[in-house]
Amino acid sequence: MGTPVNRRVALARIPQGMPQTDDFTLVDEPIGTPGAGELLLRTIWLSMDPYQRNWMGGARNYGTAAAPGATVIGRAVSEVVASNDLRFVPGDIVCGETGWQTHPVASADAVESVDASLAPVSTALGVLGSPGLTAWVGMVDVGKPARGETVVVSAAAGAVGSVAGQVARNMGARVVGVAGDPAKCRHVVDDLRFDACVSHRDPDLGAALARECPGGVDVYFDNTGGPVTDAVYGLLARNARIALCGLVAEYGASDARGHDLRPLLASQATLKAFSVRRNLHRMPAWRRQASAWIREGALVYREDVVAGIERAPEAFTRMLVGRTLGKALVRVAEDPPGR
Amino acid sequence: MGTPVNRRVALARIPQGMPQTDDFTLVDEPIGTPGAGELLLRTIWLSMDPYQRNWMGGARNYGTAAAPGATVIGRAVSEVVASNDLRFVPGDIVCGETGWQTHPVASADAVESVDASLAPVSTALGVLGSPGLTAWVGMVDVGKPARGETVVVSAAAGAVGSVAGQVARNMGARVVGVAGDPAKCRHVVDDLRFDACVSHRDPDLGAALARECPGGVDVYFDNTGGPVTDAVYGLLARNARIALCGLVAEYGASDARGHDLRPLLASQATLKAFSVRRNLHRMPAWRRQASAWIREGALVYREDVVAGIERAPEAFTRMLVGRTLGKALVRVAEDPPGR
Repeated sequence: MGTPVNRRVALARIPQGMPQTDDFTLVDEPIGTPGAGELLLRTIWLSMDPYQRNWMGGARNYGTAAAPGATVIGRAVSEVVASNDLRFVPGDIVCGETGWQTHPVASADAVESVDASLAPVSTALGVLGSPGLTAWVGMVDVGKPARGETVVVSAAAGAVGSVAGQVARNMGARVVGVAGDPAKCRHVVDDLRFDACVSHRDPDLGAALARECPGGVDVYFDNTGGPVTDAVYGLLARNARIALCGLVAEYGASDARGHDLRPLLASQATLKAFSVRRNLHRMPAWRRQASAWIREGALVYREDVVAGIERAPEAFTRMLVGRTLGKALVRVAEDPPGR
Repeated sequence: MGTPVNRRVALARIPQGMPQTDDFTLVDEPIGTPGAGELLLRTIWLSMDPYQRNWMGGARNYGTAAAPGATVIGRAVSEVVASNDLRFVPGDIVCGETGWQTHPVASADAVESVDASLAPVSTALGVLGSPGLTAWVGMVDVGKPARGETVVVSAAAGAVGSVAGQVARNMGARVVGVAGDPAKCRHVVDDLRFDACVSHRDPDLGAALARECPGGVDVYFDNTGGPVTDAVYGLLARNARIALCGLVAEYGASDARGHDLRPLLASQATLKAFSVRRNLHRMPAWRRQASAWIREGALVYREDVVAGIERAPEAFTRMLVGRTLGKALVRVAEDPPGR
């Protein structure tokens, strides 16, 4: 082991379309020194999330702007190495938007404690973190499925979709997932216990969905946009609710094809784009609910792990193209001993 | 005057794109005989509304299906000629969905009384009827503009848009209209007293709108869809509300271009398609509000009248292409004496 450095993944250039390996560059630099109120961290887990692609495409609502040389943004679970804040001591586990780097210096105000006794700490990035809360908020606040209503979830095998569908099922709804290959669809039905799952590669997706939704779609939890969204719009039931969570199939596209809104008019639908960012105060409530469901077996989750920060771009692209199952993570370092 | 007949306008075929004169045919037939609970009516005014184009295109939620030979659907104000229902006597003025015909037979349950002492009876089809109620419901329930917020209304010189903008202004909002030619834009600002109006023929509509909405668009009351909608989506403020009332620019198009939803995601917008049909019970409340505003000069309206039922197709197309100012009507017969 040489002198420890902060290794970070920076943008080499702004990706066009699907990110390529050479859109990124590895930078080794001296580890920073925490100032007053700051922490030096050692990253354990990096979270791969679709919003990062949106940031790379120039979306402005994520703090720092995407530009060549900028460290890729992203949430991470880390161990506190040094603390200049009374709230944290070395060895604490924290979670925050600290980006793709091995040894970030972060404001103590910008991270939160992770209770390692509750569950594996990686879940703070998935089912017990923002993706889980996103799914819960979108289903409970926007989707509001009544008992027996039909709910469709796109990207059903993903970190958000897998939870969204299980939340809806736990609310008494009939849940139909849309996922990629047959293995994923089987996972969605067999492990996540959705009522059905349709492959978005089905040559007649509309007909396949219509078979599973004979009374129409009351709630659509949309993670993807793209052709899946158009197919679901064609099946909306009267008074349908659309929880617009993401448009991952369209991020970075210079010319998204756009969606015909006439079915929304015909069904008197409501579409609400929502964000977890203004609902972070509800995280404790979600963690209580989710932990109880996990204990009862009413909420299951999967993680899709790639090892090594240098493979973060690869892990990220795998997640974007839908080759991951469950929460996509990069393991940057081992958990501290005793965890 | 020969023997009176029921003259009706029927579909000759399903229109493709903008309706043409020979998509319609005039049919003279014997006047029907009202059965128990029915009325024989003499049509005075026909209402020209965008939803009729939607019906012609196959939309299913308007009762009878569009087919060659079918009388064109539409609301009308009529005089009762003969009544087999205790609630109506000859000479009464009624309003109902009685279609493009001079002497309909209608169920008494399907029409409502028009109070001719309140205002000219034609207003039952416009400002004091469904278009007015539509505007009010959409602005009050969905748009909900706060004092000082910016509201954009498309088809601002039309029957619904003209009222929607005035309602928003009366609620304390800053109102920007979108209309066609300069004369309409002047009407929207000078007569309807919107704060500004932009022509949708402006070669850079987005820039023109941005100048009038420097803080973004908080509420968009959408009557049209089409490129106007894309321009407004590009200017949505955080937490914007979109009241989706109609997509008249897209009705009958076999291949609507579709709308990029990414701006809705970025602004965390809510879009709600709403219908007056489930709000008809609020008509009395709207009439009270509207009548008071009309008396105070806080709500003005225009009517665009074409005479003769045989000219209904022409009047309808003029309305669809946006050549009318205010509520588009066809006068089929004179008001009864003394009105």
